[in-house]
Parts: sequence; C-alpha cells; structure tokens
Amino acid sequence: MRTVRLIIAYDGTAFFGWQFQTGMRTVQQTMAEAIRAASGEDVTVVSAGRTDTGVHALAQVVSFVTESALSNVSWRRALNHYLPLDVTVLEVADAPDGFHAIVDSRGKRYRYLINDGPRRDVFARHYAWRVWQSLDVAAMDGAGEGLLGTHDFAAFQNAGSSRQTTVRTVRDVLVERRRFAEGDRVVVEIEADGFLYNMVRNIVGTLVEVGKAKRPVDWPATILAGRNRRQAGMCAPAHGLYLLQVFYDL
Amino acid sequence: MRTVRLIIAYDGTAFFGWQFQTGMRTVQQTMAEAIRAASGEDVTVVSAGRTDTGVHALAQVVSFVTESALSNVSWRRALNHYLPLDVTVLEVADAPDGFHAIVDSRGKRYRYLINDGPRRDVFARHYAWRVWQSLDVAAMDGAGEGLLGTHDFAAFQNAGSSRQTTVRTVRDVLVERRRFAEGDRVVVEIEADGFLYNMVRNIVGTLVEVGKAKRPVDWPATILAGRNRRQAGMCAPAHGLYLLQVFYDL
Repeated sequence: MRTVRLIIAYDGTAFFGWQFQTGMRTVQQTMAEAIRAASGEDVTVVSAGRTDTGVHALAQVVSFVTESALSNVSWRRALNHYLPLDVTVLEVADAPDGFHAIVDSRGKRYRYLINDGPRRDVFARHYAWRVWQSLDVAAMDGAGEGLLGTHDFAAFQNAGSSRQTTVRTVRDVLVERRRFAEGDRVVVEIEADGFLYNMVRNIVGTLVEVGKAKRPVDWPATILAGRNRRQAGMCAPAHGLYLLQVFYDL
Repeated sequence: MRTVRLIIAYDGTAFFGWQFQTGMRTVQQTMAEAIRAASGEDVTVVSAGRTDTGVHALAQVVSFVTESALSNVSWRRALNHYLPLDVTVLEVADAPDGFHAIVDSRGKRYRYLINDGPRRDVFARHYAWRVWQSLDVAAMDGAGEGLLGTHDFAAFQNAGSSRQTTVRTVRDVLVERRRFAEGDRVVVEIEADGFLYNMVRNIVGTLVEVGKAKRPVDWPATILAGRNRRQAGMCAPAHGLYLLQVFYDL
C-alpha cells in the first residue's frame, strides 16, 4: 500500500467543478473512474483545491492510496489512456505515507486571465474574462501590493464558507500584460498560504475596478481593512481562473 | 440596395463547417439567422472560403446584399448582439456593387498550429495538432521553400473537388516556432492565390514528416513534381487550421 501524488491539468469548461456530485460530470469522479480502469481499485481521490464549475487547473495536486504494483510511469500512461481529453496527468510521484493533498499544502498560486482587447475573442470565451475597457495594469499591480501580508481577508470571502478563520497570508500579487497565441491578456497571479471561498475572484473583481480608473489605487487596501464583503468589487467569473501551483514541504 | 462586406472570426469546434447543411449547425446558417434577426431580411451569405468542420477563422470575409438602412456600426452591433459567442463580426464595410467574397478574392493566407511539446495540453485539444515529437522547424521551413511559385498542386489535393485546374501560385510558406504564454507552438502559414481542397492540411502533414526527420528537406518538392496525392504525407487534422486573411484589390 502506498500513497501516490499526481499533478493534473484540466479544462474546467465541461466539468461541474472538482467535487463529486451525483449525476454530474466532475473532475473527482473522472479521476476515480480512470484509476478504477487502470488498477481495478475504488479509491478516494483528494485534491489540493476544490475548484468550482468552469475553473481550470494547470497543476492541480491529487493524492490517493493504492495497493497496485503499477510503476509511476505506468500510472501516468494508464491514466492518460483512460482519461478524456480535457483532463491529463502531467506527473506521478510517490508521496510520504499519510500524505494528504489539502492538509499538507503550504500554499497555492492562482492565475486569472482577462481579455481587455477592443474585440470579442471567440477563442477566449471559456478561458478569460471579457472586460470592455482597456485596463491600467500598473495601477492594478500597485493596488495588489496593498493586499500583501497577513490580514483578515473577510471582505474578499463569499458566503457559504465554513472556514474557522479568515486570516490569510498573501505572499504575492502580480498583475501584468502577457502575449498569448490568441492575443494579449491581463494576467493576475495571487499566491497565499490559503484562500477563502472565491477570494481570488473577489480580489480580481476589485482590482479591475482600479484598472478601469473607477477607484483609486489604495481602494483594495481600504476594502481589506473594512472587512465588509459588500464593499468589494464584483466576483470575477469562474472561467478566467486557473489553479497554477500548489506548494508543499516535501 | 447595397452590398455589405464583413470580416468575421469563429471558433470552428462546434460548427459543421461554413456551408449550409440541413439540420446541421453551420457558420453560414448562423450568419443568415443573425442577419434575419437584425434586419428581417432573408439573404444569401457568401464567404471567401468554405471552411470544413472544426476549422477556425480569424478573419473570414463574408458578403451579402441588403435593402436595410442600417449603418455599418449598427450592423456590427446588431449582428454581435444576435450571434452566439463562438462567432463574431470584427468589421463591417461597404463593398462595391456586385462584390462577391469568393470570386473577387485575390488570394488567402492560412495559419496552422502544431503543439509538439512534451505534454498533452488540455486547452489546445481543439486548437492545435498534437504531434508527439519535437519538430525540426528549420528543416520544415526549408522544405516549404520548395513549394513556392506557380505549380500544379494536384499531389496536395484531396478527392472530392471539382476545380477546373490544379495550378496555383504559392506566395509564401513560413514555418517558425513561436513562444506564447501557454507554451510553444510550431506555426505554419501558407499564402496562395487560391487553394485546392485540403491543400493546406496536406502540405502541413507533408512538412511534419520532414520536421520529424522521416523525410529529407527536398521531399515536399519531389511530391509536388510527382503530382500524385498518394505520395504526400497525411492530411493534418482540421482543428489546427485557421483562415487568417483574405486578399482583395479594392
């Protein structure tokens, strides 16, 4: 018996999020089915983050316990053979006994993509938030600095969460324009030791208000200090969000 | 009564190609329905190229004749209001009386995207051909030079075409690796005064054989001279192909 750790990527468009729901196509169930096809085992698959419907992952971390004698290379080949084309296993590694993808995580990094070009982009409709105004990226980046450090992020948490504390440490907020195959995107990356429910999307919605010059650069820091969700910007849509990296001390 | 010329873009994934087919979702029918919704007219919509199922367009040219008094700006807004999110109108312009998007075209340029990275990319599955070997782009570019000029391209034409002559003039074949935020792509662009059926995809499939070092750099020119379709490489899949530009003397 050993614990296996996978790094997987998925296009969240056609999934009802990560977590198992009866009758729905979810990433968790799809992974469990591929594992069953590969080894005949019914396992519980745990992930580092329960992404919502439409949210993508470039490097989600997943763990499960197996009795199978399959090597790591064989696991990767077998799973990718059985998985549909919108989810793929990038890496397979041994994990320490008792490893748990959520509990042992020391933090995560998310990416958010915004298309603020002058035209609708038919190729981006599931992969970037369409904002109809050219954004001031420098102002957004400056505004993000006001969120760095250890704070009570209650103002950026949506209802429906049962987390015990709303204090988190944000280690990095980066906002820049990057060139993708289909055109420029405004990229927001946020790294923290943990995230509240919809925290990235609420921060992005707030930063975009600054990028549109509707709010001053220090506005997000003011919202943070107020701890009142109703003061923050809109929750940015799910389809622009990507789980980019999960950190562990291993 | 006037002739309107549109530049449109579409994601070909969910369309059964450009051309009207009873009971199928095609771009031609979708455009005709949007025009009907905008002006109440039933018009014949002509395009510069009848793209196949799965083929994309970054700048397809479309024309139709209208009695409507709508301005060009109003046409664009109205059509984009009624169109689904996978097709969009980029530009609307007046065309000379009797303008016909195919007949008056002086050439076209296509782009083909190949993902030859070490990993499956879940986001590229509908947008780039997955080749499981790193390609020698310089060799492919050199091979492409052997196709420049006016030749009988019968070796690169699929059956099912009724074109009167198979002589075409290829003005440019460009092969290069481009670095994008989501990963490298091998980009092939081919410009000609006209194209035979599946000509771009057959040329790309042939160039990829050279890129894999399975064939020498002068092989595509040899195939061209032989005029025998069975000698060429495989027909590259539709989902990597983009209609990039259409040329007119206007």
